[in-house]
Amino acid sequence: MTIQRRKLLKSVALGGAGAAAAAASSLAAPAIAQDMRELRMVTTWPKNFPGLGTGAQRLADRITAMTEGRLRVTLFAANELVGAFESFDAVSAGNADMWHGAAYYWPGKSPGFSFFTAVPFGLTAPENDAWILHGGGLDLWHRLGAEFNVINFPAGNTGVQMGGWFRQEVNSPEDFNGLRFRMPGLGGEVLRRLGAAVVNLPGGEIFAALQQGAIDATEWVGPWNDLAFGFFRVADYYYHPGFHEPGSTLECGINLDLWNSLSASDQALIRAACLAENNEMYAEFNARNGDALNTLVTEYGVNLRRFNDDVYAAFGAAAEEVLAEVGAEGGIVGEIHDSFVNFRTKAMEWTGLAEQSYANARQAVLAG
Amino acid sequence: MTIQRRKLLKSVALGGAGAAAAAASSLAAPAIAQDMRELRMVTTWPKNFPGLGTGAQRLADRITAMTEGRLRVTLFAANELVGAFESFDAVSAGNADMWHGAAYYWPGKSPGFSFFTAVPFGLTAPENDAWILHGGGLDLWHRLGAEFNVINFPAGNTGVQMGGWFRQEVNSPEDFNGLRFRMPGLGGEVLRRLGAAVVNLPGGEIFAALQQGAIDATEWVGPWNDLAFGFFRVADYYYHPGFHEPGSTLECGINLDLWNSLSASDQALIRAACLAENNEMYAEFNARNGDALNTLVTEYGVNLRRFNDDVYAAFGAAAEEVLAEVGAEGGIVGEIHDSFVNFRTKAMEWTGLAEQSYANARQAVLAG
Repeated sequence: MTIQRRKLLKSVALGGAGAAAAAASSLAAPAIAQDMRELRMVTTWPKNFPGLGTGAQRLADRITAMTEGRLRVTLFAANELVGAFESFDAVSAGNADMWHGAAYYWPGKSPGFSFFTAVPFGLTAPENDAWILHGGGLDLWHRLGAEFNVINFPAGNTGVQMGGWFRQEVNSPEDFNGLRFRMPGLGGEVLRRLGAAVVNLPGGEIFAALQQGAIDATEWVGPWNDLAFGFFRVADYYYHPGFHEPGSTLECGINLDLWNSLSASDQALIRAACLAENNEMYAEFNARNGDALNTLVTEYGVNLRRFNDDVYAAFGAAAEEVLAEVGAEGGIVGEIHDSFVNFRTKAMEWTGLAEQSYANARQAVLAG
Repeated sequence: MTIQRRKLLKSVALGGAGAAAAAASSLAAPAIAQDMRELRMVTTWPKNFPGLGTGAQRLADRITAMTEGRLRVTLFAANELVGAFESFDAVSAGNADMWHGAAYYWPGKSPGFSFFTAVPFGLTAPENDAWILHGGGLDLWHRLGAEFNVINFPAGNTGVQMGGWFRQEVNSPEDFNGLRFRMPGLGGEVLRRLGAAVVNLPGGEIFAALQQGAIDATEWVGPWNDLAFGFFRVADYYYHPGFHEPGSTLECGINLDLWNSLSASDQALIRAACLAENNEMYAEFNARNGDALNTLVTEYGVNLRRFNDDVYAAFGAAAEEVLAEVGAEGGIVGEIHDSFVNFRTKAMEWTGLAEQSYANARQAVLAG
């Protein structure tokens, strides 16, 4: 949690390949160089953490490359400029220009934000994109963000997350009673209804908490990420599928005053860079998760388990209760809830006929 | 098939909002204006056809907007500059700068191209992105494209396609015997093995062929697209899920000499614009397909049917045969085949634990 401002400002001043390119460009085209702008991106992720940290870095680098350094985005990992969970406030207040993180880290600002990352028994990654980009979600997200002087765009997705790491088998809903569990967002509230003592911790603090016994179990993301954190060293059972995050959208949040000061073309450019990362990060998770799961099971002897139907039914009942309560808040949170829930009904029908129906048929024919 | 060059060149000369913006920019920043470049994008789609034509237009407009008109992309629908299936040759020869289409329209160039759109019993949209962007696919695609002086990027996806429109119910594999069916790509070859007389036609020519009895049945994309073409007026039965295109990637192909003449920043910018469209088009299809299917069933009385297990098993057996034969070609086609098939094995495992497992559990709990 130390703030290493001095060291970082020095590294920014020295610059990297991006700065060299920008300098070269400024010699060749002074008209462009006059517009040069440095954008500080804070993140909720450890430095270069696979998928999330590297995805945020790829977004930063992409904007820099696309503008030939005219917009130079410098990334600060969690705790380099501010703590992971201080990212929103830092950008809202203009102490940083943008952040990469997850909207459900900000329930204290508004429970409405959770819908833009993931909701228990909610939308898969493609469905989430459909709701946000072409189902009314983005307008609602922007209206909510404007109340805090920020504007957000989808900029990454983990896909369906794993259900979590446990030291003991989970055989019934009662096994959650008294369990100290790390889970952010509305999923955490669902486990609370099953009697769990739920905490939220940034990714970089989970392993130590689990190792030292401060928590009994945790979820994080999926095999690729979880392997990197080494959870298999302190918990043997790995459950799927996660009910709590069926397609977590990551976000790029930008200070609204800064955004409004940008030209229409730079706004279009940043938006496209975010959508590109939205596409690419999900692709990377899908490409790496299978191999990582193999490593966990074959090299480290992890016990892969599926939550049984009783447990899943209990998750579902509590999730619908939690979702309805959030919707009852009314105002813009109620609007977001209604938009999301209505879209989910339609999405389940289409996915049921399309992706889900196909995947089941393919499995029956090729692997059955 | 008429080429309305005169009329189009005139409309290009007059320009639109993009041209006005570019003109304004050229007054304000002459250094940028010197770099202005007009790029002609041909497409395999009818003008502004929902999803595909509008997606290509959105890609063209996005590149223009991101560069403030410095790279101004002018779109020509199928038959405006060249015919739909002449797009590849036009760009390869430099008679157009880029195209938006589907790689499996070019089996005459190489059967290897089919893998970059869709393969029978192949990958879903997220899996296809994973293979192309982070599983080695893009490098292979670029190597194959370079043989024809083009470079391709993924730039859209339809998701799982519907199985097609039929005048009669399909109850057994034998029902395909003698059926005159429109289906491009390797899927068409699969139906040929079941005895169908398979033809390929660009989208804009299918309805007339079906209406005039030149073909008995057709597939196109999915409810949103198929509703727009009006197939329900001439065929009553609508089958799912399509085995032939489980997640068709659309492509932006670019003349390789042109590509190599671009700065690294413009290359990064075009690549990001393509990935943004890759994300956004799939989102739009997923958002619109459900509503369109509802309209087809409730307003137009379309009979929605699922291919039975016998039919699907016959599709599968023929598909695996076709795929193996393509792989046996060796060379780069064999490399592409092997990369794809190996990735499919891993992807099926991960999807089975993640998206598929979750969608089935969600359905059981919320709708079961």
